Amino acid sequence: MKKKVPILLAALGSIALLTRKAVAQADPLPSWNDGAARNSLIEFVTRVTKKGGPDFVPDMDRVAVFDNDGTLWAEQPFYFQGLFAMDRVRSLAPRHPEWKEKQPFKAVLENDLKTLAAAGPERLIELLMATHAGMTTDEFEQIVKDWLATARHPKFKRLYTDLVYQPMLELLAYLRANGFRTFIVSGGGIEFLRTFSEGRYGIPPEQVIGSSIVTKYEVRDGRPVLVREPKLEFIDDSAGKPVGIHKFLGCRPIAAFGNSDGDFQMLEWVTSGSGPRFGLLLHHDDAEREFAYDRASVVGQLDRGLNEAAKRGWSVVSMKTDWKRVFPAL
Amino acid sequence: MKKKVPILLAALGSIALLTRKAVAQADPLPSWNDGAARNSLIEFVTRVTKKGGPDFVPDMDRVAVFDNDGTLWAEQPFYFQGLFAMDRVRSLAPRHPEWKEKQPFKAVLENDLKTLAAAGPERLIELLMATHAGMTTDEFEQIVKDWLATARHPKFKRLYTDLVYQPMLELLAYLRANGFRTFIVSGGGIEFLRTFSEGRYGIPPEQVIGSSIVTKYEVRDGRPVLVREPKLEFIDDSAGKPVGIHKFLGCRPIAAFGNSDGDFQMLEWVTSGSGPRFGLLLHHDDAEREFAYDRASVVGQLDRGLNEAAKRGWSVVSMKTDWKRVFPAL
Repeated sequence: MKKKVPILLAALGSIALLTRKAVAQADPLPSWNDGAARNSLIEFVTRVTKKGGPDFVPDMDRVAVFDNDGTLWAEQPFYFQGLFAMDRVRSLAPRHPEWKEKQPFKAVLENDLKTLAAAGPERLIELLMATHAGMTTDEFEQIVKDWLATARHPKFKRLYTDLVYQPMLELLAYLRANGFRTFIVSGGGIEFLRTFSEGRYGIPPEQVIGSSIVTKYEVRDGRPVLVREPKLEFIDDSAGKPVGIHKFLGCRPIAAFGNSDGDFQMLEWVTSGSGPRFGLLLHHDDAEREFAYDRASVVGQLDRGLNEAAKRGWSVVSMKTDWKRVFPAL
Repeated sequence: MKKKVPILLAALGSIALLTRKAVAQADPLPSWNDGAARNSLIEFVTRVTKKGGPDFVPDMDRVAVFDNDGTLWAEQPFYFQGLFAMDRVRSLAPRHPEWKEKQPFKAVLENDLKTLAAAGPERLIELLMATHAGMTTDEFEQIVKDWLATARHPKFKRLYTDLVYQPMLELLAYLRANGFRTFIVSGGGIEFLRTFSEGRYGIPPEQVIGSSIVTKYEVRDGRPVLVREPKLEFIDDSAGKPVGIHKFLGCRPIAAFGNSDGDFQMLEWVTSGSGPRFGLLLHHDDAEREFAYDRASVVGQLDRGLNEAAKRGWSVVSMKTDWKRVFPAL
């Protein structure tokens, strides 16, 4: 009997060793197919984390920024926040009989996406203000949470927060496991994003940068509140993205991930800094599992990015060939 | 001889044990005198970090916000950034002969603080724009760093970054050692603050919130830059502080530290949340070691705060009696 104890211990030791080895070697990006995009990611992370290596970057400077719409979650047939605004118009319509005859509200109520798409930015901003302002920040948060908990995507019939990209969730976790801080830099509304960024992406509110409207501090019956005013404050898109990054972070990230020309300047800003840099564009070329769109799309147009990616050393990910799966399992 | 080894080991063990005990019991706030303010701080931190206790706050929600001018460093005879602007006017004056006859520049060049103080906000903003805009963010950072490395305070003849408060440095470290994230929320310029916040306070750029001017993204000869425009974007003072906190953090901190009525709304916002809350005002009543000013001061006026602190449960720190020392040793 006595001999069995050391044998058992030795066996346990081997198992522990094997397990440790397996964990160390576990694939950090299981939903990515072997290929140039995946390799470039792993090569970059290995390079900047190699202590004593020529491209080592200290933890403090390991900052990565991610676009949201079309990069971390889907954005077709229309930006999800736009779909939220349309649902909100429908909910509020009984209180606004005048909307039946007034554009762009009329187009929403008649589900006339063509008229809506052609309405121009000023009309769309009007739509946003009517649906996103005039309440406290707490009230708005609750309205968004209620919508996200119930509304379903027209094609996939799933909750919108289920339409995040599994390979990108893995990439976020992989970067954080390697000492990166991960930020969202989105053209979408900062307060809209913050309602689900922590739960879905593991990105806390203070690491979310987005577009904003003016808010105002008020004390109502002795209770302080922040009220959302119908006034645009900042558009965190295109040339606004480097501005937003600088304002919120005060440093230049070393890696940027996007999918459209609205991310072009963010990638340009990030990858033109000194030292090792990484830029990546996700190309939506998968009509079967998601959507296929690029140069001619109104939503998430990707044209200049495709033209210049190679020249600028940015990786281009093909959703169709680089990803084993698109969305998380139900 | 053989006996000596175990005795030696036992002795070493005792020393190690004693050292560990001493470290555990080391005073985290050595520059604070024993008293109500110090006790309230320690009591609060102990309460929110006590696992299983009724007031336990998880790490994620342990967020503390600090005003800067007059709270983390001195602000008399005038806000240091104002003194920077005045020095900058003097440096730029040869290029602006018209300033000799034009207010508020004339007052600066003639060192006429009385005229300057009476100039009104619009004139002072003009002064800020002439000295803080029209360069890239990198250039501005260098200008501020050069000034901080050489300019001396008129009373103390020390570098401005040496006029941070030693007791507050200890408080920042104490909070962080207890799982808090510490943010600056200042009426001062965000980019001005970020040049020294990490080195002096251990607060990284992304944890600094402040006033800002508009910046614009430009590509100059293929090199992207951010240009500071002469246009106010956001004033992070008074009712602007809760707005800035909400915009940058997206959560309500549980502790707020200030010294003037410009911090009133920040303390009000923070301490009116649910669960354990902490508000503290530093009262400058120490003419000998620093300055004595409150209700009647133009810089850092503290009037409403003194009236309402007790009623609102905010601690008031007397610099004179609560602090053993004011500035760090040279």
